[in-house]
Amino acid sequence: MGYLKMSKDELKKEREALLKQYEDYKGKGLSLNMARGKPSPEQLDLSQPLFDSLKSTDSYFSDDGTDCRNYGGFDGIVECKHLFADILETSADNVFVGGNSSLNMMFDTISCFMTASIYDDTLPWHDVKDRKFLCPVPGYDRHFGVTGYFGFEMIPVPMNEDGPDMDVVEKLVSEDESIKGIWCVPKYSNPTGITYSDEVVKRFAALKPAAKDFRIMWDNAYAIHDVTDTPDTLLSIIDECKKTGNEDLPILFCSTSKITFSGSGVAALAASPLNMKVLKKRLTYATIGYDKLNMLRHTRFFKNYDGLKEHMKKHKNLLAPKFKVVIDSLNNELKDAEIADWTNPNGGYFVSVNVYKGTAKRVVELCKEAGVVLTGAGATYPYGNDPDDSNIRVAPSFPTVSELETAMDIFCVCAKLAAIEKII
Amino acid sequence: MGYLKMSKDELKKEREALLKQYEDYKGKGLSLNMARGKPSPEQLDLSQPLFDSLKSTDSYFSDDGTDCRNYGGFDGIVECKHLFADILETSADNVFVGGNSSLNMMFDTISCFMTASIYDDTLPWHDVKDRKFLCPVPGYDRHFGVTGYFGFEMIPVPMNEDGPDMDVVEKLVSEDESIKGIWCVPKYSNPTGITYSDEVVKRFAALKPAAKDFRIMWDNAYAIHDVTDTPDTLLSIIDECKKTGNEDLPILFCSTSKITFSGSGVAALAASPLNMKVLKKRLTYATIGYDKLNMLRHTRFFKNYDGLKEHMKKHKNLLAPKFKVVIDSLNNELKDAEIADWTNPNGGYFVSVNVYKGTAKRVVELCKEAGVVLTGAGATYPYGNDPDDSNIRVAPSFPTVSELETAMDIFCVCAKLAAIEKII
Repeated sequence: MGYLKMSKDELKKEREALLKQYEDYKGKGLSLNMARGKPSPEQLDLSQPLFDSLKSTDSYFSDDGTDCRNYGGFDGIVECKHLFADILETSADNVFVGGNSSLNMMFDTISCFMTASIYDDTLPWHDVKDRKFLCPVPGYDRHFGVTGYFGFEMIPVPMNEDGPDMDVVEKLVSEDESIKGIWCVPKYSNPTGITYSDEVVKRFAALKPAAKDFRIMWDNAYAIHDVTDTPDTLLSIIDECKKTGNEDLPILFCSTSKITFSGSGVAALAASPLNMKVLKKRLTYATIGYDKLNMLRHTRFFKNYDGLKEHMKKHKNLLAPKFKVVIDSLNNELKDAEIADWTNPNGGYFVSVNVYKGTAKRVVELCKEAGVVLTGAGATYPYGNDPDDSNIRVAPSFPTVSELETAMDIFCVCAKLAAIEKII
Repeated sequence: MGYLKMSKDELKKEREALLKQYEDYKGKGLSLNMARGKPSPEQLDLSQPLFDSLKSTDSYFSDDGTDCRNYGGFDGIVECKHLFADILETSADNVFVGGNSSLNMMFDTISCFMTASIYDDTLPWHDVKDRKFLCPVPGYDRHFGVTGYFGFEMIPVPMNEDGPDMDVVEKLVSEDESIKGIWCVPKYSNPTGITYSDEVVKRFAALKPAAKDFRIMWDNAYAIHDVTDTPDTLLSIIDECKKTGNEDLPILFCSTSKITFSGSGVAALAASPLNMKVLKKRLTYATIGYDKLNMLRHTRFFKNYDGLKEHMKKHKNLLAPKFKVVIDSLNNELKDAEIADWTNPNGGYFVSVNVYKGTAKRVVELCKEAGVVLTGAGATYPYGNDPDDSNIRVAPSFPTVSELETAMDIFCVCAKLAAIEKII
């Protein structure tokens, strides 16, 4: 029965039963972590052959004859540019291959625009004193961290099931010239796991921002990261922007952090010629080129885009059972209480749970005391401020299936306990 | 006989003989490159075992138990921090290990200070409209590129045989609050190859800059890169600054770009706790951590600092004969003409040659026409502006000894030809 339909006595009885379960778990001295989207050791093992994909006896020349051990190759080796062009559905000309982190490339992109103007008649963003950035919520805390660091006022935009609320986005960007961009994880969004609908992508491509130098930070982190046999599809923002003549709006990012090794993958961005010109002007002084041997290691390992997609099936096989544990547990343990809702994504790294309003912080605290670490409540909102104190990001990838079962049991008990505390 | 002591007829005769040699070289259709400080393939071969130093069957855990394949390890794996601490003569606590490029870390450091103030009562450098940077000349073009990109007015400071002219440095920094820093390559300086004397290091440590946020960019790129058996020694700027209470003045940089692979090495910086706090605040948002597998590959390969020093002897054995070719050639072919002078360094990657005043551009042009590419004349000065049009950086590392002999023959012929053109 739904908790809101229960009498006080029924709720107290329910609480006593839950508290007994909770104390049992606490007594076990567990240490489980569902906080970050970290691949599990088993997932990392899938890429173990990468260690040997470039041996001392192998050729260290890229396809165009570059000695990958030496300086040079500013924008990445040719075969790696092609691989990322396939992932980002663009041509290799538009691709710049960077270091081990797409977050780092996003940070550098914002950093670039802070001190360099994109157009002759626009200001470096550092000189826009009331600069603002749109942040679909719930969203990715590290995105918000970047714009927070650079002093943007961050404006939350509600996320719907098909992407950010475009009525809000269109209204805001058309009215306020100090809004310089928006953070997007368009596929298997962090944390809700939804994918932007065709309509949302088209509306993004058709935006008419007041700020000429407004940019869409299109972080396609989970472009090929399915966890079911009914994967989502995402319209190409580059193609749509070509149709609307808005090709300078988006800058795309991705990496192999959740394909090969999270600490030692390869990242890339794709941008229009104009954006690339501004970014490359900076990069020319910032680096002679990124790690070409690691690029070569990756392209030798995957061979081509088909090889990459085959590899992703192995990740799916490891991740799918974990997502099932989370969804089954939520369905079995929380559904009847009618105090929470959640997403059931086809890919990505997260399940987004809205616990009973005003209890997210308490749920995280209760879980922690029982040995289960969750992403901090509020982390999915700019400034850590979830006005409903309701959203919690569950990251199922790192624990084992059996750890996850226990962790989710505890999570559900805590969510119910916190709800009753609030209702009573 | 010195050209300036020759009669016009003697010079004309000399020129005719030189022109004949020059045309002979031109006819050979050569393609030789002494432009950049690139290691030769043979030097890169020395590190070929690095490809196998981390095999799929090896442990991927760092000394403190970090899984180097996954996220984490923000400031670098512990054994790599220690290795760089040894190179930079400081403690591992002061070290941050980055990506594949120390140039990139220097760029990011300046970029950091552009938008973040170092002290509560100082401005981000972007807000200092008349910001300036001191540039010892001749110096490293990529350093000047960074501060040029960020809009600093670059003030040349003469280089003496023991380092920058400290009378000039002390006067300028004590008088002008808008001077925010100075570029230094303190050991085997780029391009003169000289090492800062103890007195110069002590005077740097004792600087009393008008700008509280003045910083010394101490690029120790050639810390252990000897090419003779009589290596230079450099006083520790960190130790000296501790004595003077100026520990926040210097930020140190180095990398393995010229130790292992130029494109795929590991870079690091060392900084005082205050500087590190400002830099880490940025880095926390800029990255989750750099490539730990590459760090591990490097520490497994070298084992320890002694292993690293042994490895550098092999580089010395390859580089020493090349430096000898350059110096011998200059001595044999240019000395008598008394139209040029040059340095004879104990390490590093360059020989700095001052050709006859007003002829550097012409020498580079003549060399190019004969198939020898040199660093552009003026590149060793901010804005490419060598007021004497005299300095040329010779980079002997990349060509083979035999190519280098030919290239230097051509260089000397061109230097003499250009001088005669000017004198007559």
